[in-house]
Amino acid sequence: MKVLITGFNPFDNDTVNPSYEAVKKLPDEIYVNDQLGTVTVIKVEIPTEFNTSAKVVRDLVELYKPAHVICVGQAGGRSGITPERVAINLDDASIPDNAGYRPVDEPIIANGKNCYFSSLPVKQIVREISKSGMPAGVSDTAGTFVCNHVMYHVCYMKESGVFPFLKSSGFIHVPFCSDQVERDHPWWNPLSWIYTPPSMSLEDMSAGLAIAIKEVVKGESGDKIEGGAIC
Amino acid sequence: MKVLITGFNPFDNDTVNPSYEAVKKLPDEIYVNDQLGTVTVIKVEIPTEFNTSAKVVRDLVELYKPAHVICVGQAGGRSGITPERVAINLDDASIPDNAGYRPVDEPIIANGKNCYFSSLPVKQIVREISKSGMPAGVSDTAGTFVCNHVMYHVCYMKESGVFPFLKSSGFIHVPFCSDQVERDHPWWNPLSWIYTPPSMSLEDMSAGLAIAIKEVVKGESGDKIEGGAIC
Amino acid sequence: MKVLITGFNPFDNDTVNPSYEAVKKLPDEIYVNDQLGTVTVIKVEIPTEFNTSAKVVRDLVELYKPAHVICVGQAGGRSGITPERVAINLDDASIPDNAGYRPVDEPIIANGKNCYFSSLPVKQIVREISKSGMPAGVSDTAGTFVCNHVMYHVCYMKESGVFPFLKSSGFIHVPFCSDQVERDHPWWNPLSWIYTPPSMSLEDMSAGLAIAIKEVVKGESGDKIEGGAIC
Amino acid sequence: MKVLITGFNPFDNDTVNPSYEAVKKLPDEIYVNDQLGTVTVIKVEIPTEFNTSAKVVRDLVELYKPAHVICVGQAGGRSGITPERVAINLDDASIPDNAGYRPVDEPIIANGKNCYFSSLPVKQIVREISKSGMPAGVSDTAGTFVCNHVMYHVCYMKESGVFPFLKSSGFIHVPFCSDQVERDHPWWNPLSWIYTPPSMSLEDMSAGLAIAIKEVVKGESGDKIEGGAIC
Repeated sequence: MKVLITGFNPFDNDTVNPSYEAVKKLPDEIYVNDQLGTVTVIKVEIPTEFNTSAKVVRDLVELYKPAHVICVGQAGGRSGITPERVAINLDDASIPDNAGYRPVDEPIIANGKNCYFSSLPVKQIVREISKSGMPAGVSDTAGTFVCNHVMYHVCYMKESGVFPFLKSSGFIHVPFCSDQVERDHPWWNPLSWIYTPPSMSLEDMSAGLAIAIKEVVKGESGDKIEGGAIC
Repeated sequence: MKVLITGFNPFDNDTVNPSYEAVKKLPDEIYVNDQLGTVTVIKVEIPTEFNTSAKVVRDLVELYKPAHVICVGQAGGRSGITPERVAINLDDASIPDNAGYRPVDEPIIANGKNCYFSSLPVKQIVREISKSGMPAGVSDTAGTFVCNHVMYHVCYMKESGVFPFLKSSGFIHVPFCSDQVERDHPWWNPLSWIYTPPSMSLEDMSAGLAIAIKEVVKGESGDKIEGGAIC
Repeated sequence: MKVLITGFNPFDNDTVNPSYEAVKKLPDEIYVNDQLGTVTVIKVEIPTEFNTSAKVVRDLVELYKPAHVICVGQAGGRSGITPERVAINLDDASIPDNAGYRPVDEPIIANGKNCYFSSLPVKQIVREISKSGMPAGVSDTAGTFVCNHVMYHVCYMKESGVFPFLKSSGFIHVPFCSDQVERDHPWWNPLSWIYTPPSMSLEDMSAGLAIAIKEVVKGESGDKIEGGAIC
Repeated sequence: MKVLITGFNPFDNDTVNPSYEAVKKLPDEIYVNDQLGTVTVIKVEIPTEFNTSAKVVRDLVELYKPAHVICVGQAGGRSGITPERVAINLDDASIPDNAGYRPVDEPIIANGKNCYFSSLPVKQIVREISKSGMPAGVSDTAGTFVCNHVMYHVCYMKESGVFPFLKSSGFIHVPFCSDQVERDHPWWNPLSWIYTPPSMSLEDMSAGLAIAIKEVVKGESGDKIEGGAIC
């Protein structure tokens, strides 16, 4: 069984994008459990561009026929790993993407639904990452930049049924990585620590994503998970 | 012309809910411009309860037949006035509501859409509040507690067409108010200011909501507003 | 009786400095109580410059012979009014001041003490501002930029005894003001509200400073105030 | 040559104190460079109590006769490793310590100076930790709880000259560790990420402290380090 997991290239003057750096560190094979065995992890960097990112992911899905697709992106300022619950049908960029394109209030797919929910077991992922000692939480917004754009597309691919081999798809945001805040977002205000963004080591991020892959392969536990919006 | 604007009662051990406090301070009549004249502002406090809040709003809509409905709620931790862009079809509470009810991962309306977009001119509201010197921004999540629940319902009321007099509806979140952070969320960590939530004076909040009412009555400018996700 | 209260001019590309804007709004006379009567408030803008700021304040002290000196400065990122407890004998700037001067690890006064404590009743000020519904807290660092420099000098003036009419002196930091965050520090990251600095209305700041002036004139209550580091 | 490095036990209902957890992970010997060779690292947990902590450290200094003393403490809410610049002569606790003692506005040492500066090369430590890819910054306040108390005492020990073998002493604050925020400071507000404290992995913290030990042994570079208050 194959799991496709993507990360983005750097954007907006940052020298690194932790999403692909963490994906890159994943092993090529991950053992899930005795019943489900081992899965192959396909790791790909995709461009932070509205007009090519989703196409690249679609081509990879056609090529590899993965059972699950997990796209990963950077959410600078968050302090933990945050699986996204929902993607909305809206491109609305406050900065240009890496191709210089900046859509404002454009629908992503003209006849798509207003939004799609992730088919990944988001709460189960959060519960297991937390158990292993790393900060994680369910997020209710993937924004309206390229992350949400790609998530909307992979959820649409799943719901549209064009790829019958695709069992689940969704998106996970990761924080800045540690050396990135030092280099690209240094402290500037000694009077207030509020400006210093939280960060996470790439090792922890990658360990968290490995846990996510296992939970995605195991699928929904079937039980509704107590813990509410944030568990 | 009538505008219905609601705020919530206090919840989760807080002694005050700034949303209704700010609504209460609004004048009964607001002059919009020479063409549109003056609107009547109907101000009501609604309960922070899943099972009654939306019903109360629906009854108020039937009773007053307002042209516009703006529901206002508290988003503790935000630093400005934030019109919400979208409400999702999901109740998922991390704490019980004021009736002791705590739904987990329940759809709000069984045959409703996955989400509805606000029909308020959210960017225009943000632009005008900002111009007048108060912090404001478009938000992409109203959470999954009672705020999102009520927003989903008022957007559904508009889209369903049952109330033909209803021209637009949506939701605006406000920060903690100043005396609330002092009383209910005091500083506790002198080593880091990160724990001290931002707040806003009720006077400023109310002035911001008055601007929002004017923009709602004027309606969409028709122009797509530059500024992206955040303007 | 005269109280000298100063604010700074804008620095570091900001279009406004809330410290002087709030000082400017103070009345020229403040009634304290029947016993102490009314005090005259001398309000002056001073330059955000290491080499002139303290000299300007010293000249003002010689000229007006105030009983109390309160210098006010901007602490962008803080969410409340914060009287400073201590000034250290160190200039260490991460950006140039308004004269282009940027000292690194320089003592302020060669034979001065390592630090001076404020002689203002900092906890009493915090208690009264809080009571009146505005966020306030005692701060343990005024940084190492021009604010700390000026505070060190006014505390030295008091301790050195050269100005026998000077009963107390110290420093109060204020947050960004509301229109400033909109114009100079706009939100840029819809995925995380952490980047949006808290702010306060100039009306609230100025009301807080008026309370501070009253408490400074009344002086220490004589009782040790419970509440610890933060009260 | 010996370096004494201490961490605190847990306090204020937390199940863990990252300061000692990170210290515990340090190797027993650290190679500095060819010239200075290898140092022995004495790692001790001390109580979070005003009345015993400093005595315990003093006894350890007498016993081991270390060339350098580095005390480490938790600064919940900070996002990086922060060597402290200064300790002030003031105990002022907002919560009781682990012995139930809560001093308010008490001097630490009656005839001590108002404050002592760290004799550790704080900027050099920050520069090297940052270079190795972890967030770090110089802090200008160690608060007024047990951390500042212990730092004041170890700086006093150095300055008083009673322990002639003692070359430098000071204090370093570390953030919450990752599993701690999950267990003791979980997210509670999905509308705002501001409440979720940043954290760091114990591996990174410990690696940062090892770097600090090397820089402390190498001592001041002699050059004034550019970079201002925060480098």
